[in-house]
Amino acid sequence: MKEIKIFCPATIANLSCGFDVLGVCLDNVGDEMVVRKMSAKGVRITKIAGADLPLETEKNVSGVAALAMLAQVETDFGFEIEIYKKIKAGSGIGSSAASSAGAVFGINALLGNPFSAHELVPFAMQGEKLASGSAHADNVAPALLGGFTLVRSYDPLDIIRIESPSELYAAVIHPQIELKTADARSVLKQNIPLKSAIAQWGNVGGLVAGLYTNNYELIGRSLHDEIVEPLRSVLIPGFDLIKAAALENGALGSGISGSGPSVFALCKGRETAHKVAESMSSVYDNIKLPYEIHVSPVNDIGVKILASH
Amino acid sequence: MKEIKIFCPATIANLSCGFDVLGVCLDNVGDEMVVRKMSAKGVRITKIAGADLPLETEKNVSGVAALAMLAQVETDFGFEIEIYKKIKAGSGIGSSAASSAGAVFGINALLGNPFSAHELVPFAMQGEKLASGSAHADNVAPALLGGFTLVRSYDPLDIIRIESPSELYAAVIHPQIELKTADARSVLKQNIPLKSAIAQWGNVGGLVAGLYTNNYELIGRSLHDEIVEPLRSVLIPGFDLIKAAALENGALGSGISGSGPSVFALCKGRETAHKVAESMSSVYDNIKLPYEIHVSPVNDIGVKILASH
Repeated sequence: MKEIKIFCPATIANLSCGFDVLGVCLDNVGDEMVVRKMSAKGVRITKIAGADLPLETEKNVSGVAALAMLAQVETDFGFEIEIYKKIKAGSGIGSSAASSAGAVFGINALLGNPFSAHELVPFAMQGEKLASGSAHADNVAPALLGGFTLVRSYDPLDIIRIESPSELYAAVIHPQIELKTADARSVLKQNIPLKSAIAQWGNVGGLVAGLYTNNYELIGRSLHDEIVEPLRSVLIPGFDLIKAAALENGALGSGISGSGPSVFALCKGRETAHKVAESMSSVYDNIKLPYEIHVSPVNDIGVKILASH
Repeated sequence: MKEIKIFCPATIANLSCGFDVLGVCLDNVGDEMVVRKMSAKGVRITKIAGADLPLETEKNVSGVAALAMLAQVETDFGFEIEIYKKIKAGSGIGSSAASSAGAVFGINALLGNPFSAHELVPFAMQGEKLASGSAHADNVAPALLGGFTLVRSYDPLDIIRIESPSELYAAVIHPQIELKTADARSVLKQNIPLKSAIAQWGNVGGLVAGLYTNNYELIGRSLHDEIVEPLRSVLIPGFDLIKAAALENGALGSGISGSGPSVFALCKGRETAHKVAESMSSVYDNIKLPYEIHVSPVNDIGVKILASH
């Protein structure tokens, strides 16, 4: 195999009660990338379409992720990367993670898969470190593993993949505003009430149990976040209206995607997800705020091969 | 059926990271109770052996739980209750919960089971309210449902039963000291660091995932509590030594049972559990502290019928 073309999925991190630990992979929202062998060693970003991002390897998240991986494996050739961005930067659905995950997935495939998907995560996390200053796995884990992922611990890194119930869909709305991750982080409080924390870990337990038992109602009852959402949602125009519209139209639950400004709703079934997406769109139509809206089933495998030769 | 004799199991609540939400039911540690119909309406405690507890219905946890239940169902007869206590009060393995759960289970059986096991929980919680001032479900839920239980929420009450992996055993050591629940609660802090809370809910997610996937290693990795255990363990003589001995001898994890002073260790397999129990016992043997030690598989059904006629 000399060249591989891949789909690099968007992801939702910080799934309500699962702040900093639970994420999910989307299926029809994502970038495309082409990775091909080149005779010179090293990594070159040869093309970026759809976004104004640096071509220098060391300044590009996919370049940095690729270099982290190549530091762990001997090759007598190098790799060219083309990136076709469709996920907007700063949308809160894992734009940088898609590029980091795609780079290491593509190179791994061209090398004959010396690394498992789990083993690729730490390399992709180096791309996240470049993007946000913190080597987090919230988005790269679901992008590489598919389904739902739980980042149980960072030291040591322990990521658990959880199969999605088959009828789960996500509706995600992205208001076209800029919300910096740093601002979203600055509203967090260092200390929280023990009582709220107990409610939160009860809900995390319920959400994980709901995923394993295909219990959609339990998933819905557990999708609450009484710690971060109340602080961050004020930064997102119309958040309360969006969430109320989603729940009224049958969503199991709704919350902030990543650190925003996108808002997600998880739904049972494609039809409900489309109805929920329409209701969320109406809110921004009414206040004339431009937005993008996505409806997607859960992607159970993560990065996908579109073509190779 | 006029009379039923039942086994009322001990339970471990506050399972490490699952403080206030996760509990598990034991199999060969527990009380016995006899419940029989009597012609007069109401509830009478006719015998208590093995403990100095009040016979007055309104002052006895099993009486109070029984009355809470009978307020919801019409009968033209009443119930006599005999209690044979084997679980020591104040041990931290659900002594009051065993009596409350047993009373409502026994009466329900004599009435032809008008209530499901889940529906019995709120009645038994009234016994806990009498015992500790708080109508908690941490111990009555696993006692009535068996296996592991997650109390996701109290308002509304939402309890999820989780089947135990078949090879899970608990070793529980009860040092013969008095540790009041009020004292154990007073050391808790009202506010906790967000960072610790995130680690805790990551572990709760990991523990629940481990239980559903029979992943003993994951269960072990998740059995951590960085919030409550560091504060409470100082109240328990030799806690660090007990826990270290358990882990060195192959326990998956170890922590405080309920609000103490008992210390539990979860283990894979009977043999390991016995080895772990021996190692925990040695610690108290060395410092000449009297103790009781129990080894039990997880009880998957909760209260058990021993005889009926």
